[in-house]
Formats: sequence, C-alpha cells, structure tokens
Amino acid sequence: MDLRNSGFKLAPVDTNLFPGGFNNLSAAFMPLAVQAATSAIEKICPEAKNLLLLPENHTRNRWYLENVATLAAILRQTGLEVRLGSFFNGEKTQLETASGKKLLIEPLKREGARLVVEGFDPCAILLNNDLSAGVPEILQGLNGQVLVPPLHAGWATRRKSRHFAAYDEVAGEFARLLEIDPWLLNPHHAHCGEIDFQAREGEECLASNVSMLLEKIRLKYLEYGIKDTPYVAVKADAGTYGMGVMMVRDAAEVRDLNRKQRNKMAVVKEGLAVTDVIIQEGVHTMERIEEKAAEPVVYMIDRHVIGGFYRVHGARAADQNLNAPGMHFVPLAFEQSCTVPDPHANCDAPPNRFYAYGVVARLALAAAGLELEETAPAT
Amino acid sequence: MDLRNSGFKLAPVDTNLFPGGFNNLSAAFMPLAVQAATSAIEKICPEAKNLLLLPENHTRNRWYLENVATLAAILRQTGLEVRLGSFFNGEKTQLETASGKKLLIEPLKREGARLVVEGFDPCAILLNNDLSAGVPEILQGLNGQVLVPPLHAGWATRRKSRHFAAYDEVAGEFARLLEIDPWLLNPHHAHCGEIDFQAREGEECLASNVSMLLEKIRLKYLEYGIKDTPYVAVKADAGTYGMGVMMVRDAAEVRDLNRKQRNKMAVVKEGLAVTDVIIQEGVHTMERIEEKAAEPVVYMIDRHVIGGFYRVHGARAADQNLNAPGMHFVPLAFEQSCTVPDPHANCDAPPNRFYAYGVVARLALAAAGLELEETAPAT
Repeated sequence: MDLRNSGFKLAPVDTNLFPGGFNNLSAAFMPLAVQAATSAIEKICPEAKNLLLLPENHTRNRWYLENVATLAAILRQTGLEVRLGSFFNGEKTQLETASGKKLLIEPLKREGARLVVEGFDPCAILLNNDLSAGVPEILQGLNGQVLVPPLHAGWATRRKSRHFAAYDEVAGEFARLLEIDPWLLNPHHAHCGEIDFQAREGEECLASNVSMLLEKIRLKYLEYGIKDTPYVAVKADAGTYGMGVMMVRDAAEVRDLNRKQRNKMAVVKEGLAVTDVIIQEGVHTMERIEEKAAEPVVYMIDRHVIGGFYRVHGARAADQNLNAPGMHFVPLAFEQSCTVPDPHANCDAPPNRFYAYGVVARLALAAAGLELEETAPAT
Repeated sequence: MDLRNSGFKLAPVDTNLFPGGFNNLSAAFMPLAVQAATSAIEKICPEAKNLLLLPENHTRNRWYLENVATLAAILRQTGLEVRLGSFFNGEKTQLETASGKKLLIEPLKREGARLVVEGFDPCAILLNNDLSAGVPEILQGLNGQVLVPPLHAGWATRRKSRHFAAYDEVAGEFARLLEIDPWLLNPHHAHCGEIDFQAREGEECLASNVSMLLEKIRLKYLEYGIKDTPYVAVKADAGTYGMGVMMVRDAAEVRDLNRKQRNKMAVVKEGLAVTDVIIQEGVHTMERIEEKAAEPVVYMIDRHVIGGFYRVHGARAADQNLNAPGMHFVPLAFEQSCTVPDPHANCDAPPNRFYAYGVVARLALAAAGLELEETAPAT
C-alpha cells in the first residue's frame, strides 16, 4: 500500500496486489513475514508442500528479481517447496538478481485443469505478475489448485476507481466508529470513462471533474485552515508502475495537453490504450528522508502488516508523483515495526506514526477484499 | 520450553504452561509476539475486547511482575483491554515492577458463572498462575468465558510424567518421519509413585528406576561413542520453579539421602507433599555464555515460536540444574530469531540451532496439547 501523510491527512494513494519491493523490507522484519506467511499458507492449503510463484516477465530488471528472491525465501522459510514459473516456451532459464542470487525460472505447463512445471505439481500458485497484458490462456479454467490473488485481481480486470469506491465504504465506516471526518483518511476522487487522449476525446469530462474536485479540496482546506495549494492526480484507471500519472493544479492544464503529455497518458503498458482515468485528490507528503520527499509504503502478507519502507525521490516535490520511472529511487526500511504503538509517546513518534500507517494500510486491504468480492466472476 | 542441547542430543526438559520470563525476550521480537497473540486472540474470542490476566500471587518478586507487565503489554498491543486480577480480599493494589512500571491488581469477583473485576467483564481469562496450591473455588464452574490454559493445565492436576509420556508419542512419530533415532530428541524417563521422602518409603522404586535408566543411557552412549558420564534428574512430578530437583549419577545416592536432601525433595511449594517423582535422563548442556553453562528457553504464544533466551548459571556445571533458586541468574536474549533457518549455513550456526530449538519446542507444545486432551475432565 502506497500512503501519503500530509500531517493533517493520512490516506492510501495506491493499492498494489502484486508488490515488487519485498527486498526493500528490513531484514529484522523477516521473522514477522515468515510468521504471517505461515498463517496464510495454513488457511490456503493446510496440507500444501508445493507452491509455484509466477513473477513478472521482467527478465532484465535485477531489482525486481531481488524482490522475487526475497518473496521466495519468505515462503521457503514456512517449510514450502517453492519453484518459479513463467509464460514462455523453451528451456529453464537461470537469472541473476541484483545481489547475485540465482533464480531458476521454468516454463509453465498444463496437465488437464492443473498448472505445473516439470516434475512439480503445486497445491497453490502465487501470482506476482499483475496480468496487465491480459490473462494468458494457460491460467484460465484451473481446477483443484488455489490461485492467489485470483485472476480478476490482475490489471486486466482491476480498476483503481472501483478500489477507491470500496475504500469509501471502509473508510466511511471506520470514521463513523472513531467519530472523525472520513476525509482525514480518504482522498476525494472521481472517474472519467470513454477517454481517448490521442483523439482529444473525453477532455471535457476530465476538466470538469478536475475542477469539481479542486473546489471540494479548497472547501476542506478552508474548513481546516490549511494553506497548501490543492492538486489532483489524474491516473490511468488500470495503470501500474506509477505510469500514466499526471499532477494537475488547474482544470486548464488538462484542456491544453501537448502531444508529449497526451502520449504519456494514452498508453500505460504493452500497447494498452488508456480509456478510463481516476482523478484523485493529491495528498502532500510531509515525510522527508535526508530532506528529500518520501512516502511510506506498507507491506502486508495475508491480513498481517509485516513492515514497510520509504519511497524517496530527490528530484520531486511534496505534491509530485514519487513513483516515477527512470528517476533516482532510494528505498529505506522503517526503523521500527508497524505493529507496536507506544501509548505513552506522542501521536507523531515513529512507532505511533508507523502503526497508523499499518492501520490505514489494513483499511485499504479491507477495501481490496470488498472490491474483489464485488468483481468476482459468478461461479 | 526449557531445552538442553548436548551436541549429540537436543531435548525438552521442562514444559511450563505459565511462563514467567516474557520480560527476558529481546525487544526486537515484540512485533512477532504481538502478531502471534493477535492470531491467538482471534481464535479464542473473535469479538473479544476485554481480557483478564491472573498472575501468581508473587507480590514481592519484582522480576516476576516485570514478566506480567510485558505479557500485558503484548496483549494490549493486539487491541485488547487488559486488566489484572488476583485471589485476595480487599482493595485494588498497585505494585511496582523491577523497572518501575506500575501494575494495578484487582480483587476477583463472581457474577453468576462469570469471573469479573469491578466494572470489567472479560471475554477471556489468561492464567499466569500455575495453580500449584489447588484450584480456588472462584475459578470453578465458569461458563461463557474462555479460560486459557484450562484449569487442568495447572499443577494441581498436571504431572511431568504424563507430559513426557505424551512427548514419547510426538517425538516417536517425528523421528519416524525423519528416520532418526527418537532418543536424539527424547530423554529416557521413568516414574515412581507412592513415595514418602520423610518416611523413606518408595526408596527402592526410585533406586531401581535410577539404576535402570543409567544403564539405558550407558548403552546409548556406547552406541554413539559418547564419553560423558550418564546422569539422571529426579524431579517432583508436580513441581515447579526448578524446586524438588536432584541430579544423580549412581543409584546408591538415592538410597543414602541425608535429612537435608530428604527435606528438599519432600515439599515443593506451599506445604504440598511430594508423593510422585519423575526420573529423567540428564542432558548435558553444550551452550556457554561467557564460559558459563547455559540452557535455551523457548517462548511460544499459541502455536507460534516468538523467541527465546538463555538461562545462565555461573556456579553450576553442564550436568546440573540451572533453574536453581537463590543463585545467580543471567537471562540473555537469542541474538537471532528462532523462525528463520539458513539452509546455506552449517547445522550449528545460530539461526539453524535456534530454529532447531523452535522445532523441538513445538514438538513439546504438541505433547502438552495431547497431554491436556488426555487429562481433560469429561464434559
């Protein structure tokens, strides 16, 4: 879960069900990750010994492979046999991670309704591939094996706008229980469909939603006496990796997109055209690591918060997207766990701030559960 | 779980269901303890908010109170309201722990079949009082509240010999799965009832069992080429706190007990006469902390290993009881977690040794479960 903490507001801004940064967690939190994974595995597959992990086809990103190696190591510590499979034809391939670990990736095969790699029939399949290019045929119609997350959690189906609609419900209920304004946990958002950035279609929907949201934020800032400049993020509704994101302070900006900006927004990944966008209230980040803007990222396994780190961006400001490709990127582990608040320390002391991050991350997780329940195919 | 590792053998020597050393765990393992407690509480009392912790009536042992404070802190981190109750009449009492924390102990009350303290009706009651003086009437016949561990886990009912009989089953099955000699995990043991140390009754049973066990150990030492001197521990079958324990190298020693030794064995706690003893194969300890004999103690919450520490005794040898009252006692936390073995390191490297400790502790936990199932009162 990517969060933003502006001091007056703490909110999730992105929920990733195929996380790519397990290697950025502090090694001190490894036992916590193993314990969480053990309890998750017990539920999914109590008699399971074999798990197949399906990473992204990012064969050249050695830091991503480091993430895969860490995730596999956590799973192996629970006592599972873990092997790695991928969608390709041909022989097993050995890849090297950033730290020099070797990963053996094996081609997937079908045996009837089961997904296997040679000599290995898994009980559970863990997807770390976000399926943004669609669901490969080899993954369809599986039977007798547990696939987590389910296929409809992939970006071929998932929409940010549905996630944040579910988050509205969860944050609303949580805020009622605490008798606080839900806005303190929840960014305003809106959705525009039928957009075609290249053909300049849907621009009016976008501009009027941006304008409406900025107005709503301005009113809230007035209510709470906040002096910051309101902004919104315009994001591809099915976009990942921080791509297809634009920060906007004025509706005029989306009316006057130049060719370069339109190209940037039009395609997110592998030729997929962006037709839907979510417009989301921007939350300034007050977190700084060595004076650089930072945002907390919280990692969970099953329902357990296992740790987190900062995404740090030296070249970006507090109201900018820090998840930007090609930019300097410094992940730092939280120095303390997210699970042990100190009731005697002040609200902003690290254990309490981190605990609050864990709580909001769990709210976003509950929203993801609700979202997947609502979008599940009929069985 | 108190363990002994002799290098050729790793075995549990005592299973305590009312542990008194949570304060000795490394603070780094706190998140692990909180996560384990959270998952335990979810099962026991999914809607629970109130938990009543019943400590020992050790009001003057400030280190024990430190343990109670740590245990309460772990439970509070899960989101529970925790209050402390005790068996006494009168007003609430404030006690101070070794580190100066304040603990409020409240008198227990009954409201029908429920146990309460004033203004606080708990869903669950956690016993940290070992009930060696018997089960107080106020704890009997409770209904609608979960009591953990159950009353028959207290030393009023529990017997070490039954525990180790259950451990024989568990260790035997585990050894079959691994195709190893169960003796490598399991100390030989025997039981004598109808003993009266003061009247010198039952001495013959004791002496012949000691002799038989020493002979069995000698044969095993021969089989494995071990040069150490065999010894056995004679322990009160219902004894706690390392009291009523005697180390014996020759059957003649138990025939010639002097008055002082007989007195030491005859009474363990609060006037309770010892009539049953367990005779247990002694396991030399090879662990040393600053050249002092040390034994590992593993802590668990629910089925999760959360950490451990060493019990260190400067004045005792490798074949002696280190859990001795009035003696120098230095607990040190394990520097690494018990849950993350390193398959590339050697067997005896700390992560792997600690993991093995965790595995054997979990076997002893399974034995405790079996034991409690077998001794549960008919419902």
